[in-house]
Parts: sequence; structure tokens; C-alpha cells
Amino acid sequence: MSKPLFQRVALIGLGLIGSSLARVIRREGLAGHVAGTARSQKTRDRAWELGFLDSLHPDPAACVAGADLVVICAPLGAYAEIGAAMREHLAHGAIVSDVGSAKQSVIRDLGPVIPDGVHLIPGHPVAGTEHSGPEAGFPELFQGRWCILTPPPGSDEAAVAKLAELWRCAGSQIEIMEAGHHDRVLAITSHLPHIIAYTIVSTATDLADATQSEVIKFSAGGFRDFTRIAASDPVMWRDVFLNNREAVLEMLGRFSEDLTALQRAIRWGEGDKLQDLFTRTREIRRGIIDAKQA
Amino acid sequence: MSKPLFQRVALIGLGLIGSSLARVIRREGLAGHVAGTARSQKTRDRAWELGFLDSLHPDPAACVAGADLVVICAPLGAYAEIGAAMREHLAHGAIVSDVGSAKQSVIRDLGPVIPDGVHLIPGHPVAGTEHSGPEAGFPELFQGRWCILTPPPGSDEAAVAKLAELWRCAGSQIEIMEAGHHDRVLAITSHLPHIIAYTIVSTATDLADATQSEVIKFSAGGFRDFTRIAASDPVMWRDVFLNNREAVLEMLGRFSEDLTALQRAIRWGEGDKLQDLFTRTREIRRGIIDAKQA
Repeated sequence: MSKPLFQRVALIGLGLIGSSLARVIRREGLAGHVAGTARSQKTRDRAWELGFLDSLHPDPAACVAGADLVVICAPLGAYAEIGAAMREHLAHGAIVSDVGSAKQSVIRDLGPVIPDGVHLIPGHPVAGTEHSGPEAGFPELFQGRWCILTPPPGSDEAAVAKLAELWRCAGSQIEIMEAGHHDRVLAITSHLPHIIAYTIVSTATDLADATQSEVIKFSAGGFRDFTRIAASDPVMWRDVFLNNREAVLEMLGRFSEDLTALQRAIRWGEGDKLQDLFTRTREIRRGIIDAKQA
Repeated sequence: MSKPLFQRVALIGLGLIGSSLARVIRREGLAGHVAGTARSQKTRDRAWELGFLDSLHPDPAACVAGADLVVICAPLGAYAEIGAAMREHLAHGAIVSDVGSAKQSVIRDLGPVIPDGVHLIPGHPVAGTEHSGPEAGFPELFQGRWCILTPPPGSDEAAVAKLAELWRCAGSQIEIMEAGHHDRVLAITSHLPHIIAYTIVSTATDLADATQSEVIKFSAGGFRDFTRIAASDPVMWRDVFLNNREAVLEMLGRFSEDLTALQRAIRWGEGDKLQDLFTRTREIRRGIIDAKQA
């Protein structure tokens, strides 16, 4: 496909992901114009100063006008409101996508409000850091990562291909997946790790006799890896858990069962069981290194 | 103190930690002679080829003869046997230390067998990687990390100071701590993170519909950080859990309670509770970055 792929891309939300997407679109010349908006005045001002937008708008309605691609880069809990605000202003033939970590809820919240002739193709770049806000973005964020698209059945194939090409040009590999399957896979690979990291950091904070300063001092023994994950954006993650509730609760149930079994093996001194388990988990790490996702 | 600090250091166990310690002792000229032994012939051969030892021995008895410092760098479950093998051969005035991740069990297993006039000063360098074996070691491993010493009450102060100086010369900061307190602090900062990482990787491996290849593909969403920890040495970790059972089970209990509370908040859609919790955990990460342990 020839570049620019899109005439005008509208980004709703200008945090880590939105600002990274804006930067790579401009660097690679993937759109003639990048328009942006964000809920808070502070974020809008900062984004404008950073200079990765061609135009800045006070609300989604103004931002999406005339855009052939709209990408929502806001917390999942804001989608219904954004949908209501922009629906009357979407151009015929436009693609509406997003970057949220759950996908069934996007179809639930946006599906009913997207007008005929506009293509809803939810997306999820599996990339991120523990930093948030427009300063945190950088154009290489998506390089070598996967971007999952979850087009509803019957989606326009040309629209899906065009959106996939945008992410490919941003450096990502593309996977097409059914939204429900996405939500289960991400529940285990991303949502459960975040819940657990938040929990263990919280458990540590509550300890009276190992003071917070000791926890920090001796964090190199494993704890610090969890704190990085537990420093991720609180509102974004709140909305992920609330909007992928079913799959997250199922994975939590499985995890708790497994943890209880391990706890029992420790209590009863079942060394062979522990060693077998720990040997098995080593293999997965090798797989990740081989797949260059480490 | 003038160097070399010790005439002859005997290392029992030549894996990641033992081989790193040998390397830094030689680089910094901290001992006149570095003697080593390991349980397996393969490890001994490999260590000798790598060239970080002055002498190689088939067993602990031969290794400790004439040493003024003995450091056990083996899994905690092997200490009792090592103690029995070396007790008759320890030089008067020698220091016996170790690098294990639990400290009460060291005093339990070695205390009764160490002869009078030999100083038992358990130690724990809070440093490591997910790699194992003599190839995995490097002299900078302890640089900027903490080394915790847990001398039993009444320990010889000069011996403690000399051992502390060795670790200081290896780049570490020293913390003196009561063994029981050590075991509780490390239970939360190191042992619990490892149990949880092993569990989540195991839970993921058992999933039927998110195949292992999908888990690997999309691991960048948080999971991969856990797989790194879960790739740590299986025997070493089996022994840590079995030898710090009480503190580990207590921390597991606290963690499970907190996880259940979070699970309930997700089930009942309590967004404010989630957001408050996730905001609080961010602070700890800042503390770790400020303490240069990130």
C-alpha cells in the first residue's frame, strides 16, 4: 500500500500509547495529518508542546471530524462516553479502532453506537512500559511486538488490511483473533500478572515488622520485578479488570488453586513435587527468549 | 584492613554465586589462594577450565583444610552433609560462612557441628540472575547490592568485621541482622515473589485453550517478567522454601488474603477500591528507583 495510508488520523487519548502511535505515524509518514484530543487540559497542553500532533482539539467530536482513522487510546471505562460524543461526527467509511487491553467490552460499548458505513476494528498493541503520559511515549514502542486485531465477524477485509498495515509500519507483527479468545489469552499473559504484582506490593506495604525501607533495600531478590509492573497506570488497569471481569476471575481461580497446591507441598515438605514444578517452568522462559519477546 | 584479607578461601559450591565470588576475590586480590569444590564432577571440571580457582578438590574435607575462610555456596538442603564432611578438617580460628537465602536453618544445621574456635557467620548476598552454573558467574554480580550478615549472639566481632570487609571489597553494602528477622524480610522480598512467579507460569502452562505458543507470543504484556524469575535454579529454590517454611507460609497466607480481597473487588465492580490500591503501589516503585535497586 502506498503512503500515507490515511489522510487524517484522530487519536483520542494522548498517554503512553497514543503519543507513541502519533510519533511513529509521523516518523514513518503514515498519515497526512495527526489530530489529537485528551480529556484533561494538562495532557492536551503537554502533548501540543511536545509537538507530535498536527492539530489539537478540545473534545472527541471535533477531533474525529474528517478522519479516515480514529484510534481510541483512553482507559476502557471511557469508551461509552467517547462513543456517544463522536458518533454524529464520524466520516462515512472511516475506521474506528482502539488500543485497549480487553476487546469484548469494546464491541459491547462501541458496537451499538458506530453508524453504518463506519468500520469498527478493535486492536491491541501488546506493548507498554510502567510510565504514563504524553512524555512517556516514543516511536519505537511497538517495534518487534505483537498487535492483535479483533474484527467482529463480517468486518470489511480491506479496512482490516489497511489497519494491519499501519501497525506493521509501526514495527509490529499482526495477529487476528476472536475478541473472546483475546480476552482469555491476555487474562493470563497480562491481566493476572498485573493483579498479582499489585497484590504482592500491597501485601509488602502492610507488613509492620519488615518496614517499607527494608523491602526497598532488599528488593533485588525478586520483589523489584513486581514493583515495575505494579507502577503501571492505575486508572487504565482498574478499567481492564472491570472490563475483562469474567476471564480475569477465571484465571484468578486457577492461579489460586495452583498456589494452594504449592503451599501445601511446602507445608508438607514435598521436595520432589516442588523441584519438578520449578524445572517445568524453566522451559517457558527459554521459549520466550527464542521468540525474542524477552 | 590490608589485602589479602584471607590466606586461603575455600568455596563449597561453584555455581552462579560461588563462581562470582571466586572471580571477584581474585580480581580484587582478597585472598592468597582460592580453593573450590562442587558436588558434581561436571561442575568441578567446568570450573577448573574457566580458571577462577587456584586449587580444585574432590570434596569439602580436602577443600577446607588450611582455609581461614570457608563459604558454602550450595543449596540449603546440602548444608548438614557438608557440615558433617568438613567439621574435622576446619582450621582453628577459621570463619565459616555461606550465601544461602534463609539464615535460621543455617544456624540450625551448622551450629551444632562447628567446632569451638571456629566462627560461624551466616551471610546472604542479595544478588542473582536467572542463570545457574559456573559459566553464569561474573565478578560484578555483587556490585551495588546488599549483603546481609546474621552472626549469632556472641559472635567474634573481629571475624564479623573481616567477613564484612570481604563483601565490601566485592562492591556490596553490609547489613547486620538477626537471622529470624532476615528470614521474614526475605520471605516477602524474595521467596514469595519466586513462589508466585513459579505458580503463574505453571498455571499458564496448564491452560488448554491459550496454547503455550500464544502465552509466549504475547508475554510482553507482563508475563515475561515472571518467567525470568521462574527460570531460577530449581534445587536451590526448593531448598529455600523447605528451609524457610514458617515465614514463607505466613507471607503466603497474607498474600492470599489480599488477593481474595482484590478478587472480590473485581467481582463486585468496586472501581474506587482498585484505583486506590493501584495508586498506592506506585509509590514503592519510586522508592526502589531512588534507592538505586531498580
